[in-house]
Amino acid sequence: MEIKVMKNIMDVNNKVADLNRDYFTEHGITVANVMASPGAGKTSIIMKLMELSKRRFSVIEGDIASSIDAQKIDGMGVHVVQINTNGGCHLDANMIHTVVEGDAGFDNSILFIENVGNLVCPSSFDLGEGLKLVIASVPEGHDKPFKYTSMFEAADVIILNKTDLLPYIDFDRDAFYKGIRTVNPEAKVFEVSCRNGEGLDELVKWIGGV
Amino acid sequence: MEIKVMKNIMDVNNKVADLNRDYFTEHGITVANVMASPGAGKTSIIMKLMELSKRRFSVIEGDIASSIDAQKIDGMGVHVVQINTNGGCHLDANMIHTVVEGDAGFDNSILFIENVGNLVCPSSFDLGEGLKLVIASVPEGHDKPFKYTSMFEAADVIILNKTDLLPYIDFDRDAFYKGIRTVNPEAKVFEVSCRNGEGLDELVKWIGGV
Repeated sequence: MEIKVMKNIMDVNNKVADLNRDYFTEHGITVANVMASPGAGKTSIIMKLMELSKRRFSVIEGDIASSIDAQKIDGMGVHVVQINTNGGCHLDANMIHTVVEGDAGFDNSILFIENVGNLVCPSSFDLGEGLKLVIASVPEGHDKPFKYTSMFEAADVIILNKTDLLPYIDFDRDAFYKGIRTVNPEAKVFEVSCRNGEGLDELVKWIGGV
Repeated sequence: MEIKVMKNIMDVNNKVADLNRDYFTEHGITVANVMASPGAGKTSIIMKLMELSKRRFSVIEGDIASSIDAQKIDGMGVHVVQINTNGGCHLDANMIHTVVEGDAGFDNSILFIENVGNLVCPSSFDLGEGLKLVIASVPEGHDKPFKYTSMFEAADVIILNKTDLLPYIDFDRDAFYKGIRTVNPEAKVFEVSCRNGEGLDELVKWIGGV
């Protein structure tokens, strides 16, 4: 019974995700679903890209509680809407549908959807996005692609953040890439530090071309 | 319908958790459910405590995939059983029941149950444990108690790990404690670094008395 309900939930989610995809195409919206563990640097990377790129952006912030990140983004003068899931561990297509439809502030922009900080559940829910962007961070350790396989498998782009901390942490870069390539031979990988700016040029160049 | 099924799942889970609790009492097992984000240092803290304390320990390792952590613990000669959830985002009482019942290797020990790395879902599932131990880490940032309220609310003990990284990160300790005390006035809080050993003495002293 549990599995049956879960299957129904997924079927409905996928249908609404398809509606979202059509809406995004019609309204010139390029969508990146940004997923990571808590504190890996989702908001920091989104803010750096918006600061350094000349493209037009908009943001949906997903959090269990609080609007800390949405307030930061609002301070940049970017169109942002906060979704509080009230305990829910991921965003779903219907939440995005409810927020986006009819809101012209998202039209003709690159829309970052910052998912709930969780390296497990969000990977299962299609939001209608064109890109799945997964952020890992150096202090989380190099073994994460081996342990959270479905997330790294789903990624179109993987960003390793906080490279400024490499001198202070036992992080085996080869093992990290081996883990990624075991589950995902295709994903584009970037290494950046939002703190010292390292690697951001390449990421900005990439977002300029999506 | 979704809510109804979720309620049934929770009811069944709580019943099995009660069975676990009885079993643990009868067999002299003190249980800590260890929860945190991916890479916060669950395994490192468990291993440090087992290395430095004279108590008798056992471990259940919960992971979506892999047995990386269980292999490390097995190398210490400690009784350990790996649970792979195959995509599941948390451990539940039935998984623990299946593993523990009839396995004398757990008797008369402090049992660490290392949950799946996830700061959301595991907090909702009672495993029959006596203690909920939540690990936060400096690089995740000081705002986590405000964002992942149910996890910090549920904690009996909160350990802030990776204090050796404080000089390299903008971590506001006052804001962190304010966040904790807003949702949880009672939890015991420790600060440690598994890398340089800072603060471990107090934690070892505490585990000696549980």
